Amino acid sequence: MKIIVSGTGVTRFGELWDMGALELANRASEEALREAGISLSDVDLLVVGNMLLSRLENQAHVGAYVASGIGYLGPAMAVEAACASGGLAIRQAVAQLRSGMAKRVLVVGLEKMTDVPTEEVAMGLMGAASDDERWVGATFPGLYGMMHRAYQQKYGVADELMGWSVVKNHYHGTLNPLAHFQKAITVNDVLNSQMVADPMRLLHCSPISDGAAAVVLEARKTLHKDQVELVGSGQGGDVMGFSERKTLTSLTATKKAMKEVVEETGILLDQVEVVELHDCFGVAEMMAIEDMGLAPQGKSGDLLKDGLGSIDGDGVVINSSGGLKAAGHPVGATGVKQVVEVVRQLRGVLGKRQVKDVRLGLTHNVGGTGATAVIHIFRRTT
Amino acid sequence: MKIIVSGTGVTRFGELWDMGALELANRASEEALREAGISLSDVDLLVVGNMLLSRLENQAHVGAYVASGIGYLGPAMAVEAACASGGLAIRQAVAQLRSGMAKRVLVVGLEKMTDVPTEEVAMGLMGAASDDERWVGATFPGLYGMMHRAYQQKYGVADELMGWSVVKNHYHGTLNPLAHFQKAITVNDVLNSQMVADPMRLLHCSPISDGAAAVVLEARKTLHKDQVELVGSGQGGDVMGFSERKTLTSLTATKKAMKEVVEETGILLDQVEVVELHDCFGVAEMMAIEDMGLAPQGKSGDLLKDGLGSIDGDGVVINSSGGLKAAGHPVGATGVKQVVEVVRQLRGVLGKRQVKDVRLGLTHNVGGTGATAVIHIFRRTT
Repeated sequence: MKIIVSGTGVTRFGELWDMGALELANRASEEALREAGISLSDVDLLVVGNMLLSRLENQAHVGAYVASGIGYLGPAMAVEAACASGGLAIRQAVAQLRSGMAKRVLVVGLEKMTDVPTEEVAMGLMGAASDDERWVGATFPGLYGMMHRAYQQKYGVADELMGWSVVKNHYHGTLNPLAHFQKAITVNDVLNSQMVADPMRLLHCSPISDGAAAVVLEARKTLHKDQVELVGSGQGGDVMGFSERKTLTSLTATKKAMKEVVEETGILLDQVEVVELHDCFGVAEMMAIEDMGLAPQGKSGDLLKDGLGSIDGDGVVINSSGGLKAAGHPVGATGVKQVVEVVRQLRGVLGKRQVKDVRLGLTHNVGGTGATAVIHIFRRTT
Repeated sequence: MKIIVSGTGVTRFGELWDMGALELANRASEEALREAGISLSDVDLLVVGNMLLSRLENQAHVGAYVASGIGYLGPAMAVEAACASGGLAIRQAVAQLRSGMAKRVLVVGLEKMTDVPTEEVAMGLMGAASDDERWVGATFPGLYGMMHRAYQQKYGVADELMGWSVVKNHYHGTLNPLAHFQKAITVNDVLNSQMVADPMRLLHCSPISDGAAAVVLEARKTLHKDQVELVGSGQGGDVMGFSERKTLTSLTATKKAMKEVVEETGILLDQVEVVELHDCFGVAEMMAIEDMGLAPQGKSGDLLKDGLGSIDGDGVVINSSGGLKAAGHPVGATGVKQVVEVVRQLRGVLGKRQVKDVRLGLTHNVGGTGATAVIHIFRRTT
């Protein structure tokens, strides 16, 4: 049994004050179903990835809520794993398809974050951290700021080198008409931006966004030319709180997920041509690049400065969508949006940001500060 | 590939003010692992069923939170489907095992409800209902009260007959040392109890409880004598809000889930000897009995009065644990606790409430007012 991605949909990401959660879900789902050439009655399972509807909108039957909102009457469920909710929703769809319990699954990732005061969202996001981290009043920029500092200290990396991942992703964002930010920035902009949680500056941080993404996954016995196959799925876990982590400069969960997916597929990262990885902060992209094996530990800053991951380079393209940093980060949607981007790269439909002749792509989605990581690999059939 | 339940664990249910969510999870998990004869390092996936930790304790990375809390470092995820979160967590474990993605899954269902004011919990529980129902200020006793009234009107059922399911379940609760309520009640007690949401009285309602339950599910190529096999899993969905339902006296989602599990297993309900079904309110048990086919529509009240489902009768035993009504209803734990109860009946270890020579058991878990229903069937091997 093989799994194909037959449809993809994604809304604009940003401060979408004119759209509620269900309208976002509807737009993304309709696009994905249309692309797959099926209707809701063909779907036998809805999996929703979402983190904050319970806290921000008191909605705690989220699968059924989205199902009713888009007019679907079949079985539905919600998967929650903080910012990895979308990626884990994809993984549950994979399990259901491989088990034979479902044949056609609609996965919807969504988040509606900008209708409440930012303080409330920031507090809700701290739900992804450990109790002790919340109790001392930490914030996510604060936690990743500790990683940022630990990384600089361990490898002796200059401030300037911590800025190139976000410069690249903002450049990619200028090529994505659905991105939250479509404005190029320089490394000096990063260095001069507001300090948020020393040494983390505003432009190192991904934004708070609204948005939804959807994919249709289908089980197939045989494949045809130019389909997009989901060939591998890996998940890793780690302890939640920093106080019990072995290191702050690397995510063990990413390494575990990568190991699983490499063992499953035999595909090595140097064969992959496009990667959407979890850059909630600049340092997160740098650690992901190193943890997955795209750069030696401590060297991603130099390599990014030299063009690693840029759509203008010859090598692997990292976060062609603009990543979480520029495309935006509606948390539950992010993991699904990453799949949409990679699948569209494999289909060759992305216009200005299309990478040439892509055959293999990878998505990498992280929950919290790294207690959860999910990786998927996709291949265009020949 | 077959699936066995190799371990079960469950805490006391009740107002457990001396235990937090993680201690509850720990106690249930440790018992389940000990019974399975394995340790956490043998587990390759943790699935958590939970509804309210996000809203009540601002914890929104629940899989990783419980994993860290019990000392597990592998992949973890949380499934949310309101009061069906536990049953759906079991179903995701089934999908993962059948897919081959996991070999040994620990499922933990938990809820910690009594540390906050009841009004806040009641508000959180309304997260399982539709937007319009919340906006008009409905409560769950109010919504099920509408079903209660519609049921009485449609079938011309006397008030007294609406009380026998809860009388039976309270009697069963007296035999369960872990039950929230271990006190027998009479039908007159029900009829004279405080009106909560006309015609729903206090003793028709299940309580707000703390508690956790855990099971270990394992994939096996071959089975031995006296193992408990999970033979079938069914899930049904329905529209969330009453305003769009075709009927208020029956749950379409239960019928769909039952149809799926009967088609999958070929097992008919009249072969099943013990059933744990979702009796969040008296009328919910009556509808479930009828929707699953244990009684004709409108007749369950008469049959319950005559002893249907009683542990003292000769037929199927319904809610030997005391059900949600007497054993308690920590929402995310309930669906997992139902499995613990049925598996223990199949193992013959339940002492005073043990049913003789049980070979087939069924669990039925509902989310909200019926937008989600999950059914599982278990068999003791011979």
